[in-house]
Amino acid sequence: MRLEHSHRTERFGAVRIHELQRVIELDSGDATGARGSGIVSHDAIRAIEREMVIVIPCMNETRRVIEGVLSGIPHDCLIVLVSNSDRHPVDRFEIEAQTVEQFCQSAERPAITIHQRDPGLAAALKAAGMPELVGDDGMVRAGKGEAMLIGMAVAAMTGRAYIGYVDADNYVPGAVHEYVKVYAAGLHLAANPYAMVRISWHSKPKLRDGRLFFSRRGRSSEITNQFLNRLVAEYSGFGTEVIATGNAGEHALSLDLGLRMRLAGGFAVEPFEYVDLFEQFGGVLPASYPEVMTSSVPVLQIETRNPHFHDNKGEDHVQGMRMQALNVLYHSPVSLPAVREAILDFMVAQGALAPGEEPPRERIYPPVGSLDFDLFFDTLTAEANSFRQVGTGPAVERPSPRGRTPETASPA
Amino acid sequence: MRLEHSHRTERFGAVRIHELQRVIELDSGDATGARGSGIVSHDAIRAIEREMVIVIPCMNETRRVIEGVLSGIPHDCLIVLVSNSDRHPVDRFEIEAQTVEQFCQSAERPAITIHQRDPGLAAALKAAGMPELVGDDGMVRAGKGEAMLIGMAVAAMTGRAYIGYVDADNYVPGAVHEYVKVYAAGLHLAANPYAMVRISWHSKPKLRDGRLFFSRRGRSSEITNQFLNRLVAEYSGFGTEVIATGNAGEHALSLDLGLRMRLAGGFAVEPFEYVDLFEQFGGVLPASYPEVMTSSVPVLQIETRNPHFHDNKGEDHVQGMRMQALNVLYHSPVSLPAVREAILDFMVAQGALAPGEEPPRERIYPPVGSLDFDLFFDTLTAEANSFRQVGTGPAVERPSPRGRTPETASPA
Ligand SMILES: Nc1nc2c(ncn2[C@@H]2O[C@H](COP(=O)(O)OP(=O)(O)OP(=O)(O)O)[C@@H](O)[C@H]2O)c(=O)[nH]1
Ligand SMILES: Nc1nc2c(ncn2[C@@H]2O[C@H](COP(=O)(O)OP(=O)(O)OP(=O)(O)O)[C@@H](O)[C@H]2O)c(=O)[nH]1
Repeated sequence: MRLEHSHRTERFGAVRIHELQRVIELDSGDATGARGSGIVSHDAIRAIEREMVIVIPCMNETRRVIEGVLSGIPHDCLIVLVSNSDRHPVDRFEIEAQTVEQFCQSAERPAITIHQRDPGLAAALKAAGMPELVGDDGMVRAGKGEAMLIGMAVAAMTGRAYIGYVDADNYVPGAVHEYVKVYAAGLHLAANPYAMVRISWHSKPKLRDGRLFFSRRGRSSEITNQFLNRLVAEYSGFGTEVIATGNAGEHALSLDLGLRMRLAGGFAVEPFEYVDLFEQFGGVLPASYPEVMTSSVPVLQIETRNPHFHDNKGEDHVQGMRMQALNVLYHSPVSLPAVREAILDFMVAQGALAPGEEPPRERIYPPVGSLDFDLFFDTLTAEANSFRQVGTGPAVERPSPRGRTPETASPA
Repeated sequence: MRLEHSHRTERFGAVRIHELQRVIELDSGDATGARGSGIVSHDAIRAIEREMVIVIPCMNETRRVIEGVLSGIPHDCLIVLVSNSDRHPVDRFEIEAQTVEQFCQSAERPAITIHQRDPGLAAALKAAGMPELVGDDGMVRAGKGEAMLIGMAVAAMTGRAYIGYVDADNYVPGAVHEYVKVYAAGLHLAANPYAMVRISWHSKPKLRDGRLFFSRRGRSSEITNQFLNRLVAEYSGFGTEVIATGNAGEHALSLDLGLRMRLAGGFAVEPFEYVDLFEQFGGVLPASYPEVMTSSVPVLQIETRNPHFHDNKGEDHVQGMRMQALNVLYHSPVSLPAVREAILDFMVAQGALAPGEEPPRERIYPPVGSLDFDLFFDTLTAEANSFRQVGTGPAVERPSPRGRTPETASPA
């Protein structure tokens, strides 16, 4: 794969946000090239893929589409499907699990499935020390952030070094394929035990007057990015547009970083990742993980070639996502007063908030690395019927203590 | 890449048509696997790509879309853009040539461009012995088949062993990428100096009532396939549905085979490839190339994972394509009377033919291998201003005599 060279970065304490880089070629073949900096060889990509878990959050998507997504995930990555699909009147999870199993049989590879509302999962999380994730009904809460957290906890047990997320509702297997290649290429280029890669898609096809248009930006992304950039600019004193991936559903990170991060619930999860990086590694608040401060936390932002062509969940959903992003921004201790005011003004102008009200708080969970993985694994295997290892080859053999020994578990 | 194993083949003389195989995984990583037959390693694919020319026929497509297509073509393949775009009032060819050049600069790779209506090209084809391609206006005729023929003639001069075609109007770079990987995987599996790979896309998104539907088959493909299968069945005495790629625009073949084939003009080109294989290698007519008869000519048909998501040229176009396919089928000496009658009945029922009329004949050109490549190259470089080698690295250095010495030029 060949990426554009990124010249500029914006620093926020130890966080180093790279300007958006485009994918030039999906496959750079044998190229080495004079301007070699953006070329990532096949072998380098493969080395990361072998260490990568791909988590697919999934809620009531069709079998055909899921199958396409699976086919796009490079063989050496380990697939983890975290489902929150209906189990009645039709058990959609069973259909999904079958789809994954059949795919893995024909592709001769392993995968893991788990259902978010499996009582055994709730029990395992409680036992392992994260009762926050469990709601009043005794089950893990619904939400995309919650699904991502579960996926990360499972990933941590595999002993692999990286985690990447891919939505289940993508119509283009080739786009999924590109996302994963970009994750691997970006994590390779970042060359840092703490690293994150976030994707900005090239365009998003939309229906308008019965024709297709390829618009450049998602509806809620623009707002989220604008306020995140404003947050950064308030510190530096210089306006910036560096952040282009505030809502990036597609992103990957080293588990050493991921296990230290706090994830937010629902659709607040993606923008909160930036906020949490700023809080933990921004050097503004008392640092929780001072050992990182000696190095840096690169965030690569990469624009893929493929259009993001997926199921359209409609306007309400977008409005909801946008407000969840602003809620977490508003409540972060790194947001300076000017930003908070701008957020309030915007929300009131949008009719999302009555004047004088405060935005609601989103749920913020403790780092996944704080889990007791031995207990988590034992309870999961004993009680969670939906936790299945399918296909060929072992996926999780024994709990890995990766979460708690970062020094020994840093990526190669 | 991992393909489904294809068990069944249908023979027509030396032509061995493989039943449709699905792509299981876009990237099979390090897999070797017990059921190894459908796995093609990265190295095997790369070896073919290094020997492959990708020809892109292009007529008035947008810059953005072309750029995406280019980005999906693996680095080691050589790109040849054959354009028939308008040169007035805006010179669209110049814009395309610039797009290719800029891409090649940033990707550090070579490419070739040529314009179908360049008087220098017409002169070169005349000089090299193929005046049939030149119309009354002294230019090469318009038409997709004509563009493919020009692309093949250029490819023959590069000394490479394989040629693949990719349309310029594809919205999904990842689909283009998959096509080329499938070409390489298929040509590797065919393991034969005479081989063809034809693609059947998984689905084709269509707009209907403001929503998107993924229909399985193209409108004209079904008819073409039906009559091609009928043609085969008349010989074997057994009904068959083996042919699923009669209209496949996306296909690749060894140049040893390609240079021996006669191509048809316009949109008759793709279905006529089957007809020509039957005529030349079917063992029904006096064989023109008896040396092939000792071996066989495999035709692999592969169903890709990506949807075929491209510019929609509308109904007229489809009706036209369908009829051109039937015209060549009707007039082939391998079509038995029952097939010819069925075609007549169908065309009359469609209102495409008055009862008692004969379908028109399509243009059929002599094999590209009959060209005098030395003269072709010399005239082209001297007179065809649109024939340009851009980017980094040489593409065509001197004419290769590949066309006329198949024994020494067979692929590894
Ligand atoms: N496991 C799980 N998956 C979820 C949940 N909510 C959404 N998902 C999945 O997460 C992915 C993204 O969700 P979407 O609702 O499409 O959100 P989006 O794609 O970011 O939003 P749009 O771009 O506006 O459509 C899809 O694969 C969903 O099936 C959840 O509560 N649990
Ligand atoms: N050079 C050249 N290219 C052409 C010509 N006609 C069509 N093309 C290109 O060939 C490709 C396929 O042409 P289309 O007209 O889209 O045909 P199609 O995609 O097979 O037909 P639909 O699937 O019905 O849209 C596109 O990239 C066109 O730009 C031609 O006369 N000369």
